[in-house]
Amino acid sequence: MKNVVLAADLGGTNLRMAAVAGDGSLSTVCKKPTPQNATPDALMCLIDSMAIECAPDRSVLRAVAFTAPAPVAKDFDGVLKKLPNLPSLVGMNLKTELENLFDLPVTIENDATAAGIGENWLGASRGVKNSICVTLGTGIGGGIIINGEPIRGKDGIGGEIGHICVEPDGHPCGCGSHGCIEQYASATAIVRMAREAGMRAESAKDVYAAFKNGDERADSVFRAMGRYLGITLAGLANTLNPEMLVICGGVTQGWDAFAAHVEAEISIRAYPAAAARAKLVKGELGDNAGIAGAARSALLSTT
Amino acid sequence: MKNVVLAADLGGTNLRMAAVAGDGSLSTVCKKPTPQNATPDALMCLIDSMAIECAPDRSVLRAVAFTAPAPVAKDFDGVLKKLPNLPSLVGMNLKTELENLFDLPVTIENDATAAGIGENWLGASRGVKNSICVTLGTGIGGGIIINGEPIRGKDGIGGEIGHICVEPDGHPCGCGSHGCIEQYASATAIVRMAREAGMRAESAKDVYAAFKNGDERADSVFRAMGRYLGITLAGLANTLNPEMLVICGGVTQGWDAFAAHVEAEISIRAYPAAAARAKLVKGELGDNAGIAGAARSALLSTT
Repeated sequence: MKNVVLAADLGGTNLRMAAVAGDGSLSTVCKKPTPQNATPDALMCLIDSMAIECAPDRSVLRAVAFTAPAPVAKDFDGVLKKLPNLPSLVGMNLKTELENLFDLPVTIENDATAAGIGENWLGASRGVKNSICVTLGTGIGGGIIINGEPIRGKDGIGGEIGHICVEPDGHPCGCGSHGCIEQYASATAIVRMAREAGMRAESAKDVYAAFKNGDERADSVFRAMGRYLGITLAGLANTLNPEMLVICGGVTQGWDAFAAHVEAEISIRAYPAAAARAKLVKGELGDNAGIAGAARSALLSTT
Repeated sequence: MKNVVLAADLGGTNLRMAAVAGDGSLSTVCKKPTPQNATPDALMCLIDSMAIECAPDRSVLRAVAFTAPAPVAKDFDGVLKKLPNLPSLVGMNLKTELENLFDLPVTIENDATAAGIGENWLGASRGVKNSICVTLGTGIGGGIIINGEPIRGKDGIGGEIGHICVEPDGHPCGCGSHGCIEQYASATAIVRMAREAGMRAESAKDVYAAFKNGDERADSVFRAMGRYLGITLAGLANTLNPEMLVICGGVTQGWDAFAAHVEAEISIRAYPAAAARAKLVKGELGDNAGIAGAARSALLSTT
């Protein structure tokens, strides 16, 4: 049986692709900027050219696996609907286009759910039955694994923990609510809070650099960010009582600035047994978590 | 095969018991006050006498099923550990005592999880694969069903949604945290908020009676309570994307005072598709939800 999947992670900034074997080995990881305002045709051309690089011999492929930055329900038909970061692709049937291009089975998984599946397959939470993977980037995504199975929810919205409220009258959020954790613990939020504290920061990296230089305002930003993230994770620890909380995404580069504050808040807030059980760890797969998870979903659902 | 279970719901106030058949029919429901500061022996005497009433012919019984107001993990050994409302029973091995008394298989389920299972078997959420059952009483408990299976968590803490934070610097909670939803939407919280608003209320019923008489302070209390409950449920709707949110417990007697505020808050806060999917309903089994759920667990796990 063929056991290589061509897997790709379609993000607002980059399209990443690799050939993934059944044992989890990734070969020839390619990365290209996602063309801005690209037509579906332009995207498919890019995918085709990257596939030539990642899988020169398509006869070994069993399936094509993509992530999408959108809800993916169990009965997802492949049509991309809400894509805040890729509006020009709305209405495209990604599944059909990929099937036509490759003449192979195609599976699509939500990006944050895929990251959770990937870390559970090959990364920080491997061997763990119940885990929550939080991706801290421009926004916040989540991938929840319970009894070894991802929680997708009836409409594919399961795992959208970025919009759990942590301040009832807090900062407005792009989702239409306000006070969502995404407004307090994403890279975007870190920059906003730093500016509110009088810092000149262009990115979360700048704030972290200031922290490393002993800037107390940067320390306060990461304290606040860690506290809010801890509040959210404490609630999830009580609700789902998982063995592991995996933090992924670019913001983890500032791990030493915030992780201890997250842990402290969880131990104050969650039931002692739930807090003790939920080990807080950094993701191990970095930017490859989504590719790995997409591949895993395809390997499990195709033959 | 025998298909009758002797099921009981052990609460801080009452012990309720019934014989439950495999088709879900409950016969001879008995209720007695849970003896305060009772020894384990006194409790077992009471259980024995109630069982004579509920199941005069024990030869038809397949199993004995209890709820406990405590975390129940998958590998629960039967020893009651933390029981804030029944401290005199701490250390008792309920499972072994019941096995010795009845000489039958014994299963134990957390009370709020049992209520969720019961409503899913015979009540408001029957036929629904993903549902969250919230019990609003003296405290707040939760029972989460995902893909037809209860979420118990590694240590049996799964479903403890009463201690999700809704106000980071809010009212202190018995759990050690502060600002938990239990401090804003339980019967206890309704009384506290009413008193803070200058009302003389002894119970949540008093506050509801005042609401029915047009008291604007009572209306404000239920508005606040409904808003906070909506914030929590919106987060859970985004996290788990269930088809149904079932509200149980004594506080549901005031349904018309708060339910619309809960729904309004969910529709403001949750993803539109998640909010539209999560139907908010009142539990249908009343005080029998726990008995029904305990019986269901026993029927599924014993033969």
